Amino acid sequence: MLSNTIKNELKRIFGDGNVSFAKEELLCYAYDATNTPHLPDAVVFPSGPDEIALILKMANSEGFPVIPRGAGTGFSGGSIPVKGGVVLSFERMKRILEIDTDNLVAVVEPGVVTWDLQQAVEKSGLFYPPDPSSLKMSTIGGNIAECAGGPRAIKYGVTRDYVLGLEVVLPTGEIINTGVRTAKGVVGYDLTRLMVGSEGTLGVITKATLRLLPLPEETVTMLALFNDLKDAAKATAAIIRAKVVPSTLEIVDSVSMKCVEEYANVGLPKAGALLLIEVDGNSEAVRKEAEAVAGVCLDNGAIDFRTARDKNEVKDLWKARRAISASLFRAKPNKINEDIVVPRSRIPDLVEGIKDISEKYSVLIASFGHAGDGNIHVNVMYDKKDAAEAKGANDAVVEIFKLTLALGGTISGEHGVGTAKMKYLEMELGQQAIEGMKKIKAALDPKGILNPGKIFPEASKDTAPSGAFAN
Amino acid sequence: MLSNTIKNELKRIFGDGNVSFAKEELLCYAYDATNTPHLPDAVVFPSGPDEIALILKMANSEGFPVIPRGAGTGFSGGSIPVKGGVVLSFERMKRILEIDTDNLVAVVEPGVVTWDLQQAVEKSGLFYPPDPSSLKMSTIGGNIAECAGGPRAIKYGVTRDYVLGLEVVLPTGEIINTGVRTAKGVVGYDLTRLMVGSEGTLGVITKATLRLLPLPEETVTMLALFNDLKDAAKATAAIIRAKVVPSTLEIVDSVSMKCVEEYANVGLPKAGALLLIEVDGNSEAVRKEAEAVAGVCLDNGAIDFRTARDKNEVKDLWKARRAISASLFRAKPNKINEDIVVPRSRIPDLVEGIKDISEKYSVLIASFGHAGDGNIHVNVMYDKKDAAEAKGANDAVVEIFKLTLALGGTISGEHGVGTAKMKYLEMELGQQAIEGMKKIKAALDPKGILNPGKIFPEASKDTAPSGAFAN
Repeated sequence: MLSNTIKNELKRIFGDGNVSFAKEELLCYAYDATNTPHLPDAVVFPSGPDEIALILKMANSEGFPVIPRGAGTGFSGGSIPVKGGVVLSFERMKRILEIDTDNLVAVVEPGVVTWDLQQAVEKSGLFYPPDPSSLKMSTIGGNIAECAGGPRAIKYGVTRDYVLGLEVVLPTGEIINTGVRTAKGVVGYDLTRLMVGSEGTLGVITKATLRLLPLPEETVTMLALFNDLKDAAKATAAIIRAKVVPSTLEIVDSVSMKCVEEYANVGLPKAGALLLIEVDGNSEAVRKEAEAVAGVCLDNGAIDFRTARDKNEVKDLWKARRAISASLFRAKPNKINEDIVVPRSRIPDLVEGIKDISEKYSVLIASFGHAGDGNIHVNVMYDKKDAAEAKGANDAVVEIFKLTLALGGTISGEHGVGTAKMKYLEMELGQQAIEGMKKIKAALDPKGILNPGKIFPEASKDTAPSGAFAN
Repeated sequence: MLSNTIKNELKRIFGDGNVSFAKEELLCYAYDATNTPHLPDAVVFPSGPDEIALILKMANSEGFPVIPRGAGTGFSGGSIPVKGGVVLSFERMKRILEIDTDNLVAVVEPGVVTWDLQQAVEKSGLFYPPDPSSLKMSTIGGNIAECAGGPRAIKYGVTRDYVLGLEVVLPTGEIINTGVRTAKGVVGYDLTRLMVGSEGTLGVITKATLRLLPLPEETVTMLALFNDLKDAAKATAAIIRAKVVPSTLEIVDSVSMKCVEEYANVGLPKAGALLLIEVDGNSEAVRKEAEAVAGVCLDNGAIDFRTARDKNEVKDLWKARRAISASLFRAKPNKINEDIVVPRSRIPDLVEGIKDISEKYSVLIASFGHAGDGNIHVNVMYDKKDAAEAKGANDAVVEIFKLTLALGGTISGEHGVGTAKMKYLEMELGQQAIEGMKKIKAALDPKGILNPGKIFPEASKDTAPSGAFAN
């Protein structure tokens, strides 16, 4: 709870209309996609770094949490105010400040929606590749905080690879500029990349300088159908071995195909699994690559192979792909959505292992995702009213994580740890690496006021609930 | 000075043959390319992380510096033992542990020479792009510690972009693994990129997992000649604006051309400036891009344009390019070698500004470097026996840094801060960002035993000499 003194000070800093304590409004800032709501005590709408510096200084002296928040589309609880406090919401900081077509750089405020930036730079023949499935809602600030990925990561990398520099307010209220506007720059420690993916726990991003690319001349979208998921997984590995680097290489299993077709109704053919593949670049290179992809798929068990004929077909395919996550609730009312990654050549082993785990625990598992970079969204479906099934789902996830790590992978490719994966952190990192990270957190945020209760499990019993088992 | 107890303990940890206290051997570990030698008290040759953990724990309890060192080719003093102590030299840790052709990943020890790795992966049709000019001598460990760049950075990025994960011994002796083997991974803070470019002050790298690419099908090497440097700079900006991304776009001024031709004798034509341009990739795309580059150069003042006919011509051009730095001593016995970066479109302004600075301080300035990514090596030439000229050179450098920052650039693109640029750090970063970085250093290395006297200027008068004015 905030004292009246603090409430009045918030009004003074942000202006009456830019602070709210009303429960009906606070509810909007209590959620993300994990469906593990926690009410904040206030939400404020900053207009720039100076106001944020003031609130952080006050938070340090008065001891209340401050939680930066993008659009709340995250899958790991990163923006949930698990200990209450004041949410910083960036609705008023959504300007594209600059698109520098000579140097292929954009400068934006954190509240810009990723899709809006992409549309704006495309008008100048430029390209901002990171494309999380939430891109029409999620913001650049949130994308940076969670190091968002997406289908194009196989060729173009993740958000981290496009962040050149940041304006950041440190937890103790200092406003700093990190990084450069140029591809190269090695002056001091790389605070830019330390902030990327730190889930709003090390600083508040108030401006970002982003790298752009020339827009690819042409993109070809292809669909390959297989009898089962293992064949599709093998074809994925074969495409990579053929040294083609598609801009997208998505895999979808039959459970996901069925759910999404019922939901989105785009006329997806029936099959045991599909690959959605795109190649982009120079027109001639693209034609050659598309031919190579077709050859590899047909040589590796594809039962059908199609190239999208026009923009509408491409749009339908992507509409279906992006709707999978939401459509899965048709199968079961609850799901545990994990975003594991394994080295690409191990995807067939992963697929086999998940099939065994699904049978062992008698739970339905829907798998889809970015096969090209080894990042698979594994959705363990259950009904929380069925206690045995819920336990089976829980146990299956732990086993999937163990398998993932044994295959040389990671338990989160693009969603982050937040509250959802806190309890699995040590499985991947080991205690000594966690201690090193906690030292950095303590050095920059000695009072622990910035987005507390995230990433690192707390020693006491009073931990925030895991979001992983939420929806 | 190390006590006999410490010396005996070093022998016990590393084995008699892997420790030296002999002055003639220590001298070999006193230098880097800044020519500002400081003798260490000992050099040890570790065989793995466990030995390094032991020496770091002892360094913390006994209070002596430990300095990790690659091949000593750095331009900023990063590996110089300015406060004495024990040098860790990686001659015995130079194995390529794995080249994973399915997942395009290599795992190496830090002592592997960059060129050796490149040759090894090329045998499998793969490509490790980072190519600092020192690549035939410098090591992966040193490249990572300094975040080495090189000509190919314009298209392929710098060392940072190829480091997926590290095995690191923290300054307090804990052995941790950072990062992943996969393109995606967001579990905890990005310690991998925090280590990259931290100049051996935050941890000792004992193993690196590196990202590889498929080897480009074809490379075309071109040479464009201009009447003066400004024309070449304008053509550079025009190539970028034409949305061609060359794999290399190097600029060389007439002073550098003259010195290197006298030195390397490869038959470089006489001109006011040259661009050395490469495009690589799919054969057809490369042909189109090469044509576009030729057109842009000829439209933008090129007086001659040539395409290398065979491998020998390519080899000669690169031999010349890589010999420039050393050849400049033909002009003057001493030089201050800076590696500033400006946004690419500002290179013509930079070139004009440097010309004015050269005239104002009556010093010869030779400029060459990676114009494509805005990274220019500015060499202020002088004779240290001429006090007035030495002062002019010093003043000219400060003014070049001010100009660089005013143009939106950075004072070091690929060499790092080390001791050479310590005193200019605040010009670029500001005091608050520096304080943030020092908090991280203090959190991970509370006793300050790992590579002390680097990056951050010390408050006392007893600072290490700046290496910038050394050779």
